[in-house]
Amino acid sequence: MSARTRHKSKKMSDQSPDPAQLSCPVPDENRDSVQMAHGGGGRMMKSLIEDLFLPEFNANSSNSAPPHDSAIISTDAIPAGAGRLAFTTDTFVVSPLTFPGGDIGSLAVYGTVNDLAMAGAKPLALSAAFVLEEGLSMDTLRRVVASMRRAAEEVGVSIVTGDTKVVDRGKGDGIFINTAGVGLVPPGVAISPARVEPGDAVIVSGDLGRHGITIMSVREGLGFESDLRSDCGSLVGLVSALLEADHDVHCLRDLTRGGLASALCEIAMDAKVGIRLRETSIPVSAPVASACELLGLDPLYVANEGRLVAFVPAQAAEQTLKTFHDYFSAFGPSDSRPAIIGTVVDEHPGTVELRNALGGGRIVDLLSGEQMPRIC
Amino acid sequence: MSARTRHKSKKMSDQSPDPAQLSCPVPDENRDSVQMAHGGGGRMMKSLIEDLFLPEFNANSSNSAPPHDSAIISTDAIPAGAGRLAFTTDTFVVSPLTFPGGDIGSLAVYGTVNDLAMAGAKPLALSAAFVLEEGLSMDTLRRVVASMRRAAEEVGVSIVTGDTKVVDRGKGDGIFINTAGVGLVPPGVAISPARVEPGDAVIVSGDLGRHGITIMSVREGLGFESDLRSDCGSLVGLVSALLEADHDVHCLRDLTRGGLASALCEIAMDAKVGIRLRETSIPVSAPVASACELLGLDPLYVANEGRLVAFVPAQAAEQTLKTFHDYFSAFGPSDSRPAIIGTVVDEHPGTVELRNALGGGRIVDLLSGEQMPRIC
Repeated sequence: MSARTRHKSKKMSDQSPDPAQLSCPVPDENRDSVQMAHGGGGRMMKSLIEDLFLPEFNANSSNSAPPHDSAIISTDAIPAGAGRLAFTTDTFVVSPLTFPGGDIGSLAVYGTVNDLAMAGAKPLALSAAFVLEEGLSMDTLRRVVASMRRAAEEVGVSIVTGDTKVVDRGKGDGIFINTAGVGLVPPGVAISPARVEPGDAVIVSGDLGRHGITIMSVREGLGFESDLRSDCGSLVGLVSALLEADHDVHCLRDLTRGGLASALCEIAMDAKVGIRLRETSIPVSAPVASACELLGLDPLYVANEGRLVAFVPAQAAEQTLKTFHDYFSAFGPSDSRPAIIGTVVDEHPGTVELRNALGGGRIVDLLSGEQMPRIC
Repeated sequence: MSARTRHKSKKMSDQSPDPAQLSCPVPDENRDSVQMAHGGGGRMMKSLIEDLFLPEFNANSSNSAPPHDSAIISTDAIPAGAGRLAFTTDTFVVSPLTFPGGDIGSLAVYGTVNDLAMAGAKPLALSAAFVLEEGLSMDTLRRVVASMRRAAEEVGVSIVTGDTKVVDRGKGDGIFINTAGVGLVPPGVAISPARVEPGDAVIVSGDLGRHGITIMSVREGLGFESDLRSDCGSLVGLVSALLEADHDVHCLRDLTRGGLASALCEIAMDAKVGIRLRETSIPVSAPVASACELLGLDPLYVANEGRLVAFVPAQAAEQTLKTFHDYFSAFGPSDSRPAIIGTVVDEHPGTVELRNALGGGRIVDLLSGEQMPRIC
């Protein structure tokens, strides 16, 4: 296994096909137009962000920390003792608008509060901005807005500002929703990829792939959804419980586009550490596993919308797992299956390795593009 | 002239056709689907917001203040002496993406910092979230992103967090950009429609209608744009100058969708005051005036993207005008034509009246829909 650095992984010459994509055409990153794969959470999106957006937007920013789910706003207007402001944004273009376990409205609220929670921030306020397609049914809009309200109520956050634009029929797709969120990171909380270090335990909060497989099933009419619901939900309460339990959490990441694999690859690259996973410990429910097998998908890459991965010191691993179990027993969902799935190592920095039951290993890499478009 | 209250203006039975719209079909607010007019900044948008969004989103909000360009985040985490947090969001769907005087990128930065400035807030940070249509040229994206960076540099604000989604060809329109902004309202600054009171002078920062007519001209290939550029620009410096000059500004509003007329109608309704305008004082440049005449448009309703209206106590009116002139002499644009255009009165609360040179008057009402779709 050759060690790969963050720098190398961006080079054009480094385009060995992903095993999981062998049956798909490999998109050419050199092409001069935007591809669906640029939105897929994989290598092409990473490259778009690092090569096009960050050089412009970091030019006048003092922020040189690794990219994280939320940005910390540097301001001397707020006294250090009051905490730090976290700020995040996400646009939701999921298709279809409604699916078992949620809809674009609840997804838009949970997605953004989860990004705040990943920085250890308590949500203070959300914005909601709509792009509506001419002809959209008012009933659909009403249902989505009511769903946003219920999700915001559950989390205990207010949607305080908004915007509505309408685009011509055929220039949008029903509803797109942007939610931005402002949160407060309590004094003393420091959760960031930069704190991940060899020896840390890698823990997931539940089984993988429900959201992606649910969307895929509804979209393609596959009929799996009788057994499946999206895991779409808030991680705010779970993170509060983690912080209260004081396990010295080093890093949190929610597992959205690109799934567990992409989240871990990014953290391994940003923190310049290796990550070793035990395949047999990774929780995947039976319906997701069989759907993945049927569709030729790898559940490690399938999107989730209510799962996180936590990095904690080895000695806190069992206690953290207990905190997860206790939280789900008290507040649900009761069928979450949190698990310790691996360890951070100082070998092969920037790389994630998956060890199977027999001790064999394979590299878990960023996909070039995506397995499924418009999953969130 | 019959006085109209805010409540009445929302009733279905109160649909007298707008004079400015006599030649267009009047959209039916009862229809059960989203119309282009719901995004136009007029009565249909107001009704969508008040009847559909606010009842849901205010349900769990402590915010009962009249809607404003930015929301103030209530939190006891920040000591009162540090100021108050302002938060705003705006999605930009302007078509075409580029126009004389700007593009969707600069518009997205200026639009959101202007909304912060209207609350008297200094911008702390922006987010940028993109919905890209598959097939969009990378060169176009690069130019738009560079334009955002230049605009942010000019304003002195950083774009600290972002998101990128890609939608299938034919489900978007090139680029949509959401920018959300967080700002800090300095202690002691209180700028809000609630402070507008009879006797206040009404002052615009420059001539009206450039942005709307420029977009219309480019879109329809009318060829006016040799004489015209959008007024798209930042109002942050101008508002700083106003606050430093300490004129006791009661309210500020930037004149975007729906133009001056819609901004004033909303403020009259929210503050429960009348507004009387002097038609001959309202600045409109010759090219905008002739384009409006040709197209049958009323410049009072045409969009601007770098103009504001200020409400100040009568005794501060001339000094405020001087502050505007001094600011434009020092920092440009040198062809801005600020003007005192009217007065707040205690007659006909909720209504804006336009007096012509002969002393005759007409009511300036919210349009049902819009004069021009996708202007911002």
